[in-house]
Amino acid sequence: MNPVDQELLYVGIDGGGSKCKSTIISASGHIRGVGTAGPANVVRNFEQSIASILESVSLAIEDAGLDLDCMSELIAGAGLAGVNLSHGHAAISRWKHPFKKFYIATDLYMACISAHAGKDGAVIVTGTGSCGIASVNGTITTLGGYGFATGDTSSGAWVGAQAVRHSLKSADDLAPKTRLLDAIYQHLNVDSPLAVAEILNDAPPSVFAKIAPLVFDMSEQGDDIATGIIQTGAEYINALARKLLEKKPPRFSMIGGMSERLFPWLDHDVQEKLSPAMEQPEMGAIYFAKQQYSLLCKG
Amino acid sequence: MNPVDQELLYVGIDGGGSKCKSTIISASGHIRGVGTAGPANVVRNFEQSIASILESVSLAIEDAGLDLDCMSELIAGAGLAGVNLSHGHAAISRWKHPFKKFYIATDLYMACISAHAGKDGAVIVTGTGSCGIASVNGTITTLGGYGFATGDTSSGAWVGAQAVRHSLKSADDLAPKTRLLDAIYQHLNVDSPLAVAEILNDAPPSVFAKIAPLVFDMSEQGDDIATGIIQTGAEYINALARKLLEKKPPRFSMIGGMSERLFPWLDHDVQEKLSPAMEQPEMGAIYFAKQQYSLLCKG
Repeated sequence: MNPVDQELLYVGIDGGGSKCKSTIISASGHIRGVGTAGPANVVRNFEQSIASILESVSLAIEDAGLDLDCMSELIAGAGLAGVNLSHGHAAISRWKHPFKKFYIATDLYMACISAHAGKDGAVIVTGTGSCGIASVNGTITTLGGYGFATGDTSSGAWVGAQAVRHSLKSADDLAPKTRLLDAIYQHLNVDSPLAVAEILNDAPPSVFAKIAPLVFDMSEQGDDIATGIIQTGAEYINALARKLLEKKPPRFSMIGGMSERLFPWLDHDVQEKLSPAMEQPEMGAIYFAKQQYSLLCKG
Repeated sequence: MNPVDQELLYVGIDGGGSKCKSTIISASGHIRGVGTAGPANVVRNFEQSIASILESVSLAIEDAGLDLDCMSELIAGAGLAGVNLSHGHAAISRWKHPFKKFYIATDLYMACISAHAGKDGAVIVTGTGSCGIASVNGTITTLGGYGFATGDTSSGAWVGAQAVRHSLKSADDLAPKTRLLDAIYQHLNVDSPLAVAEILNDAPPSVFAKIAPLVFDMSEQGDDIATGIIQTGAEYINALARKLLEKKPPRFSMIGGMSERLFPWLDHDVQEKLSPAMEQPEMGAIYFAKQQYSLLCKG
């Protein structure tokens, strides 16, 4: 059975820490169907990632009005969180996938490809985590992306955690007063530093990232501690940007939930280099699948 | 059956994140038996904490050459990790304990009582975590102790995490070179920043704390980043100490695995106020049980 009227079908799978989105596209570039399922971070939960991939692709097939049997005809590209870590990559590589072809790369690499519509370029991602990548003339450089406990400076989770640390020191009268303390109390609906610690100590990075907008708000209200946290974060992003720009990427973008509020804090020479992302991250996986499959056919 | 020749028996239970130690003592002050079992952090794992308490007390009874039946005659004092958090305190308070009396306090309070042999005083604990307490004229002041993700500045876990953060930035050429990077590679037996992140990202604080000694070692070898981390930590401890000293404690001690190496970095006025702890932390729980029971008998 050829479900696609002789035309190849590609599926781009964008799997992150909160959801997995699949998009089926025809060789001629038409979007045929989309599907969204749960998280797909192969390091945090491998079984769940596989389930999310299969569910989101199945939903996309259904959305395209195709038969589920066509899964074995799909040329899949998947950008998955956790694939940058060697055991994450090894686990997903061993998976007996149901597709015609299955090409894997990091979600960061897919974000870079999509931001520049399949061409060379560099990207900084500042969302819950933070990292940077440049893909120029076949050479890929990645910086940061080490996670909440050991890196991710200037990410939403980092900004939130810095705010909490400063606020709790301030509650102990061991650091200058900051409006952040009351803002965090209100946000968490508590009224003591121990209650803050109780909620946050084993919380995932995404819970800290939700505190980051308060830091920008309090800075706008003149809070020096909030301003200091953002400035420290922005210095890191400036340095990260300059390091990526050394690779001479033809285009450069900053994406992720923090990027809009962080932009005004960056140095002008960095701001001037930034262009908007050209496509959504899920398109990166499709560009990647097409590139890899055409290389295979040429090879 | 009176297992104690008409004399009251007390048991002091010192439950922390790595082990639970119980000590049985007679009213006249003689140590009768000791027993050690697994972790007893009531917030991290409540069922395990109960098992550790019961096992360590049973072993102490056995060590004392007594019959297990005498458990119901013991007046127990327990200093347990996690009791400072309200849900930890609530959980252990609901426990149907097998003792004659069961008095609960935080491990920090017990450390303070033991350091000053049951009398008023103040204590800073710098081990895997960090915190401070002063107990003066019936008023207890606690500072810090908010945990790895939100506080614990200058603790072993904090020093280790700072070292990792700086080293990974340095590996990306986004921060000055530091000998800490190679020291951490060697310690973890890896050779790339991603491998460091892979091991440490979901590691417990105790794993980060094991990196802290390297920071002191590298500082001694002239590494400026290592020195900067320790200085920042020492500034916090200086501030914490001065805040506790405002309460006019008659004695003041610093205990925990980090205290010895941190001492030389503290300001002289703080150093001069510090005296050695008079007793081991497990004695605190016994002083506490005796105090509480005598109050009951007087009341």
